[in-house]
Amino acid sequence: MAACQLSLHVGEITANRATALETISAAAAAGASVIILPELTPSGYVFGSPAEARACAEPADGPTVAGWAAQAARLGVVIVGGFDELGPDGRLYNSAVLADPGGVRAVYRKAHLWDAEADFFATGGEPPPVVDTAFGRIAMMICYDAEFPEWVRQPALAGADLLAVPTNWPAEPVPAGERPNVVLNIQAAAFANRMFIAAACRCGPERGVTWTGGSLIAGPDGYPLAGPAGADGPELLIADCDLSRARDKATSPRNHPHRDRRPALYG
Amino acid sequence: MAACQLSLHVGEITANRATALETISAAAAAGASVIILPELTPSGYVFGSPAEARACAEPADGPTVAGWAAQAARLGVVIVGGFDELGPDGRLYNSAVLADPGGVRAVYRKAHLWDAEADFFATGGEPPPVVDTAFGRIAMMICYDAEFPEWVRQPALAGADLLAVPTNWPAEPVPAGERPNVVLNIQAAAFANRMFIAAACRCGPERGVTWTGGSLIAGPDGYPLAGPAGADGPELLIADCDLSRARDKATSPRNHPHRDRRPALYG
Repeated sequence: MAACQLSLHVGEITANRATALETISAAAAAGASVIILPELTPSGYVFGSPAEARACAEPADGPTVAGWAAQAARLGVVIVGGFDELGPDGRLYNSAVLADPGGVRAVYRKAHLWDAEADFFATGGEPPPVVDTAFGRIAMMICYDAEFPEWVRQPALAGADLLAVPTNWPAEPVPAGERPNVVLNIQAAAFANRMFIAAACRCGPERGVTWTGGSLIAGPDGYPLAGPAGADGPELLIADCDLSRARDKATSPRNHPHRDRRPALYG
Repeated sequence: MAACQLSLHVGEITANRATALETISAAAAAGASVIILPELTPSGYVFGSPAEARACAEPADGPTVAGWAAQAARLGVVIVGGFDELGPDGRLYNSAVLADPGGVRAVYRKAHLWDAEADFFATGGEPPPVVDTAFGRIAMMICYDAEFPEWVRQPALAGADLLAVPTNWPAEPVPAGERPNVVLNIQAAAFANRMFIAAACRCGPERGVTWTGGSLIAGPDGYPLAGPAGADGPELLIADCDLSRARDKATSPRNHPHRDRRPALYG
């Protein structure tokens, strides 16, 4: 598996697309079968206006996603990446797509919007799909979505082995010697569900915003298999993951983090 | 606030009670107003049989809790600690109590039992109460309970500033340089709810079981204010906490981890 921390630049769609395609090729050359890209990879993040966000948008059968699907077919890999989606309803969504050699398998629209995103994007209203691929069952959600443990639970209960999280984590102060809390959150979400989670963040300062970096691939016990990445530059994180390990959720002879839930009490 | 990591010994009730009372006094002398003790403090954990668990049990108005309530009144503090409860229904519960100068304010019974605990204890069926104390609104849950983010949400949504977690985390392998995943989980739960969480674990090998230690006090951003403790001995962790900070849950000009939830989608 590869989590690709990319340097991106708002509005520079051609350059960002090329960065993504080059990184996908490098990841596949390094042996990766499942390749995760950041949130809003082709467009960048810090839009100056709704008009700019719209100018950067493209439909789910547009050139970025078509390029990823073609590369997935050529390389025999799964690609998950975020993009600025112009929906069939004319609205914009902060979306992610999963493409494999069979084509575009699923599109997911971010359901928990962060800060100014609400000025640009409509809110998704469907749970993360779980896609059965040649390498395991893969779901996706985007950045702030993953801070809602109830949301992470949905694909986990639906059988996801891996949750792929394209993200753009804005940098916040982190105490010396600590991992960023957004990174800990990914680790704990993996632990709580005994599934793999891979988060791919971005770098490259943009209109006054810097990024956490911190891309990582966490195993079902919550410990990193690769990363967390630093904040300062692109990183290609690779980990050898047997996704079927996420199907053994026994944590003791009698415990299982999903079966031990008591939903009748959860109000 | 104090999280007290104690050395305990199964069945040595008189000695364990004395250890707790001495540590409460030391914590108060160090300035603590809210003092958290481990799970099953008077009894120890690794029972050999249901009969032994029953022999170590006492009602919620028994000597251990009465001793804590008296000390809470004498010192003007809040005490949260775990004990082996003989319920009014004749069943045993893995319980925690909150005592303050007003007496015993609440008893909570563990709702998610770990491994062999099910041989000894009945399962609690009530959500963690949130108790309004002189120092803030305090809830409690026990050890494995806190690995269910849905369960942590209940008292958080009910207004808890602090979640006190008496725990006995059995030791599991931890990769070099990593914090135990049970510790990360506490940090992430604090972050997800922007509330304080303090976990008090135990030490002292018992019938072949060793413990994680890892006691900590996490702030609303998920970073430790004290700890995590090591695994090898008792520790008295103290942190200066303004619990009212947990009431400001704004994470951006437009974001709030509770208001941003989308419960209609959470199935």
